[in-house]
Amino acid sequence: MKRDNMEKSTMYENVIQPGDNPDLTKERKSASFNLWKMQCFVHEGEDVVRRRKEILDFVQKTREFDDPIPAEFLSREEIVDRGARKAKAMTDNADAIDGSDFFGEGLYFQSLVIGRELHSMSLHYGMFLPTIQGQTDDDQMDEWMGPTVGRAILGTFAQTEMGHGSNLTKLETTATYDPKTEEFVLHTPTLTATKWWPGGLGKSANVAVVMAQLYTNGVNKARGPHPFFVPLRDPETHMPMKGVTLGDIGPKFGINSNDNGFLIFDHYRIPRRNMFMRFSKVLPDGTYVAPPHAKLGFGTMVFVRSIMIKDQATQLGAAAVIGIRYSAVRRQGEINEGAGEVQVIDYRTQQFRLLPQLARAFAFLFAAYEIKTLYMLVTEQIGDGNMDVLPELHAVSSGLKSVVSWETAQGIEQLRLACGGHGYSRASAFPDIYTYAVGGCTYEGENIVMLLQVARQDSGKSRIRSWRESTDEDIIHDFEAVARRMIFASYDRLKNFEKTMTKKEAWNKCSIDLCKTARMHVKLYLVKVFLRRVSTCEDAACKKVMHTLAKLYAFDLISGAAGYFMKGGFMSEKQSENVQSDLYEMLEVLRPESVALADSWDMSDLELRSVLGRRDGNVYPALLEWAKKSQLNRTEVLPTFAKYLGPMMKEGRSNL
Amino acid sequence: MKRDNMEKSTMYENVIQPGDNPDLTKERKSASFNLWKMQCFVHEGEDVVRRRKEILDFVQKTREFDDPIPAEFLSREEIVDRGARKAKAMTDNADAIDGSDFFGEGLYFQSLVIGRELHSMSLHYGMFLPTIQGQTDDDQMDEWMGPTVGRAILGTFAQTEMGHGSNLTKLETTATYDPKTEEFVLHTPTLTATKWWPGGLGKSANVAVVMAQLYTNGVNKARGPHPFFVPLRDPETHMPMKGVTLGDIGPKFGINSNDNGFLIFDHYRIPRRNMFMRFSKVLPDGTYVAPPHAKLGFGTMVFVRSIMIKDQATQLGAAAVIGIRYSAVRRQGEINEGAGEVQVIDYRTQQFRLLPQLARAFAFLFAAYEIKTLYMLVTEQIGDGNMDVLPELHAVSSGLKSVVSWETAQGIEQLRLACGGHGYSRASAFPDIYTYAVGGCTYEGENIVMLLQVARQDSGKSRIRSWRESTDEDIIHDFEAVARRMIFASYDRLKNFEKTMTKKEAWNKCSIDLCKTARMHVKLYLVKVFLRRVSTCEDAACKKVMHTLAKLYAFDLISGAAGYFMKGGFMSEKQSENVQSDLYEMLEVLRPESVALADSWDMSDLELRSVLGRRDGNVYPALLEWAKKSQLNRTEVLPTFAKYLGPMMKEGRSNL
Repeated sequence: MKRDNMEKSTMYENVIQPGDNPDLTKERKSASFNLWKMQCFVHEGEDVVRRRKEILDFVQKTREFDDPIPAEFLSREEIVDRGARKAKAMTDNADAIDGSDFFGEGLYFQSLVIGRELHSMSLHYGMFLPTIQGQTDDDQMDEWMGPTVGRAILGTFAQTEMGHGSNLTKLETTATYDPKTEEFVLHTPTLTATKWWPGGLGKSANVAVVMAQLYTNGVNKARGPHPFFVPLRDPETHMPMKGVTLGDIGPKFGINSNDNGFLIFDHYRIPRRNMFMRFSKVLPDGTYVAPPHAKLGFGTMVFVRSIMIKDQATQLGAAAVIGIRYSAVRRQGEINEGAGEVQVIDYRTQQFRLLPQLARAFAFLFAAYEIKTLYMLVTEQIGDGNMDVLPELHAVSSGLKSVVSWETAQGIEQLRLACGGHGYSRASAFPDIYTYAVGGCTYEGENIVMLLQVARQDSGKSRIRSWRESTDEDIIHDFEAVARRMIFASYDRLKNFEKTMTKKEAWNKCSIDLCKTARMHVKLYLVKVFLRRVSTCEDAACKKVMHTLAKLYAFDLISGAAGYFMKGGFMSEKQSENVQSDLYEMLEVLRPESVALADSWDMSDLELRSVLGRRDGNVYPALLEWAKKSQLNRTEVLPTFAKYLGPMMKEGRSNL
Repeated sequence: MKRDNMEKSTMYENVIQPGDNPDLTKERKSASFNLWKMQCFVHEGEDVVRRRKEILDFVQKTREFDDPIPAEFLSREEIVDRGARKAKAMTDNADAIDGSDFFGEGLYFQSLVIGRELHSMSLHYGMFLPTIQGQTDDDQMDEWMGPTVGRAILGTFAQTEMGHGSNLTKLETTATYDPKTEEFVLHTPTLTATKWWPGGLGKSANVAVVMAQLYTNGVNKARGPHPFFVPLRDPETHMPMKGVTLGDIGPKFGINSNDNGFLIFDHYRIPRRNMFMRFSKVLPDGTYVAPPHAKLGFGTMVFVRSIMIKDQATQLGAAAVIGIRYSAVRRQGEINEGAGEVQVIDYRTQQFRLLPQLARAFAFLFAAYEIKTLYMLVTEQIGDGNMDVLPELHAVSSGLKSVVSWETAQGIEQLRLACGGHGYSRASAFPDIYTYAVGGCTYEGENIVMLLQVARQDSGKSRIRSWRESTDEDIIHDFEAVARRMIFASYDRLKNFEKTMTKKEAWNKCSIDLCKTARMHVKLYLVKVFLRRVSTCEDAACKKVMHTLAKLYAFDLISGAAGYFMKGGFMSEKQSENVQSDLYEMLEVLRPESVALADSWDMSDLELRSVLGRRDGNVYPALLEWAKKSQLNRTEVLPTFAKYLGPMMKEGRSNL
């Protein structure tokens, strides 16, 4: 398709259609930029946007992907059934996408087919396969790769235990080598050693990568956690192997389509060659061969984390799209008496709840692109046994993950509340976005050792002027200065404590400051990436709007951290007051661009799955149609009347 | 029971028992205060705590209240059935509690019987009954009160509409008086006029209080919204009346045991006397008699709001109890190499995530007590037609509601995340606490007109010294000064805008500042109430600990609003730095009191419904037991294997 046609189709046929809510159409026409160009900027190029449309068309015309009943009306059993059905259908049709582009086409394809749910094969592709790729020696690769890619086995990744999450070194599951039979004996020595959480482990997977403490040569000191290839269920009957106890861990906040599971070993034996031997080995006689480099196991976790940041950005983006569109459609209250009810997006407070979150979502998305690039670099290097960039990627990605996941969670809730009561209904999709997004929300703030290496230099004074006058350099200078000063302050406190206690105790004592410092550093990173990305935008109109949005993001962060910026008179009162009033001015400038900016995410109704966020804005009729599907509306009178309420009222009447 | 025996039983038999997790027992013994005395302080007296135990015993020994299967494993249909069953059983046993004390015994009884769910009769008692009590004339009272109290009818309160939430004056549903037949014709003129959300409306209630725009005497100007007594379903068959369309509005974030409903009228006729006529009337000939006072409808909403604040405080309290107990049981990581894994509550970052939230929960609880007292005063006055205090109650309670509900939501999530992965499982109860608590979470920040009447006076300088030296007066002085300055700043901005635009436009332009100002004022109120309440504590040991907790709350608020406190040099840098380090010092002081402070909420396992928060701390075995109840564990192999995964892998194997 020729580009200008494509533009046309994107701009008009798709986004503005007859019968749309007129307020929404008015908003779309008020934008100052070309939507197609903005979509290409947001998604890193025309080809990506075109591919998104091709994949969307494919999913929409493929009947196996249909949902007879929308997921939100299903029971746990039904949603798990749907997950398995969709997972098979999706992988049956895997060649609809570029399988090498899991970060892009893979995640998008999955979001269209399955929605905000994981499924029984998520970890098979997300962690099991990468482990096969990264941790096997040549023979193991030959043996396991085929069945994994060919779906002859269904794998998961069993690392976390009931009593041990992130702290890998304390895992309790043991793998003890028996040279007589040349087998490893897997065992769960305590209740807390029970493997807990792995996706698909409960009922779906029949094989797992199991992390266990390695014991060999009768030495009763563990060699640390190592990965093993472990059959869990009989390939024919799917019954658990003898010595293996498995099950689902029960309902969760969200992602209930996935059978996260528990796993208990009772002296369960596997062949020696089932230990992944690319890096460390155990020889037939039990001799342990250590890996060339200690950190060689972490690749997979980092991979997942870098994917998660993009995923979180997309969820916050979806919430912003829904909040903005609904706020353009919803009318409530009068700003001027008798002038009729206004679009709620006309309220300054509403703009303040919507637009900074939209900006935040873009900031996260662009950061995700950066991390992906960094990750590609690392995996390339790991291939050559080079670990140099891994620590940085590990620190940046984990710091980012903690900030991104927490702010995404908060942002989604802000946006949900901005939609009033309807945001509480699952028709809005907010509950599902939230519970899905916070699934990966953990708290890591202490990966900042490397920050302490920043060079000491005088931070000078704040360079922030009005938002129009402040250059990118001014803004970055300010964030760098504040972040740097926080680093040294924490560092000095730390050194002080270390005079009177152990390093670890000192670390604990000022860990709150260290976390705040780490978070400020991550925010600096996010602002930098956002501004840098905008500077590469080729279209002037798009660039102008995005630049304002990036500044809104930066100024919003500054106003949120006013205390730190004004410290030591770095930023004057006048400056900080201007930051406030400038924020409101930017909201006014961005107001007419809001809906088009939301559209620039190019999220179809199928991807959004929200009645409030519908492209056409015809929210109210759709809301009623949706409600009519409720499980409770299948009969006019519920059994509860015959069982409890009817007899109760009958008795009540007879007592009158 | 004699008091010292009572103490003994509370302290030992109930709270510390053989077989408990030793860490938890250690924590309980490390407290510096008498638990029984603290419980009496927290719950406003010995009688209340005793009654809590009597009610708990009654619920535990009443078999009709049992749950064969815990609620979290039920489908929507099953949870609704459970709700109706429990609602009937609960009201069958209503005389187990003091029915006049809905705020206290009523809510507690319900939380024990039903948990964090509403039910098909929540609005019958919460809003329908109060409307009958408050809005009927004598004849109506005689006619409707008996059936309502005697459960001969089941009522709800239908006010909000699909297109109109809080903005009462814009409700679209019409009630047009027809003098020929002396009837009102109820009608839903547009789709957005559809009644939406009322609890129990969808499937359970057979009568409702309906708010509708009153038209009479052919005048086509509405007299504003008025309440009507409207039969919805046939008493015998429970089928909807002709002209009435009803249904459930579908699944929600939480509270899915309740059939929130929609309601559409098609020229549905009710007798003239079905209009509530205590205040305004329509005479047989259609003559409208206006109410003596315009605001006379709001009593019920305020009642619900004041209940909600206590409820929110209790939910945040429950989350804090769970987070603190689990953090004392959970061991992860070493602070000193080789010293073994420590209780996570020993981490300063963890204390910082737990204790300020605990303090916040107490602040909200004490504020709820204040509002209740204020409410009692108001209802007494309304009885005499006196409306003086109503506006204040309205402003305070709505301002509080917005701050309390938002901070409760955030706090619960902070506490959930502080429990790591297990916090995401419904076994933790966090997901249910959260979705229940945010059910009432709305955003109202603009009720601050009355704040603008505060007297102007020089706010001077901050009086904050170290936390030990700062008196309550110092702290209150600071909050008052900062709140006052914010009020004047917003006021001046407002007046400035008003020179160039309408009052409403000006209001909109600085509404963000106005909201921030209102929130700061609410925080001032919370700090005041907390400190005042603590000053009334008679037991020295309890008072000491609670006082530190109150100061932790105040200092945490100050550090969160550092920008406002340092403005204009009101608070110096040094002071603000001390506030920070004092915060950490208070955490250290409160660390050994944490678990006992959690226990002081006197929340039984039945009330908490959390595996992580169990009194005995035996979390891990209980977690496994809980998981085994999962719907998915009823069979070893799910149907998904035969339907999708089995054939898929078989085909995969054949392709190898």
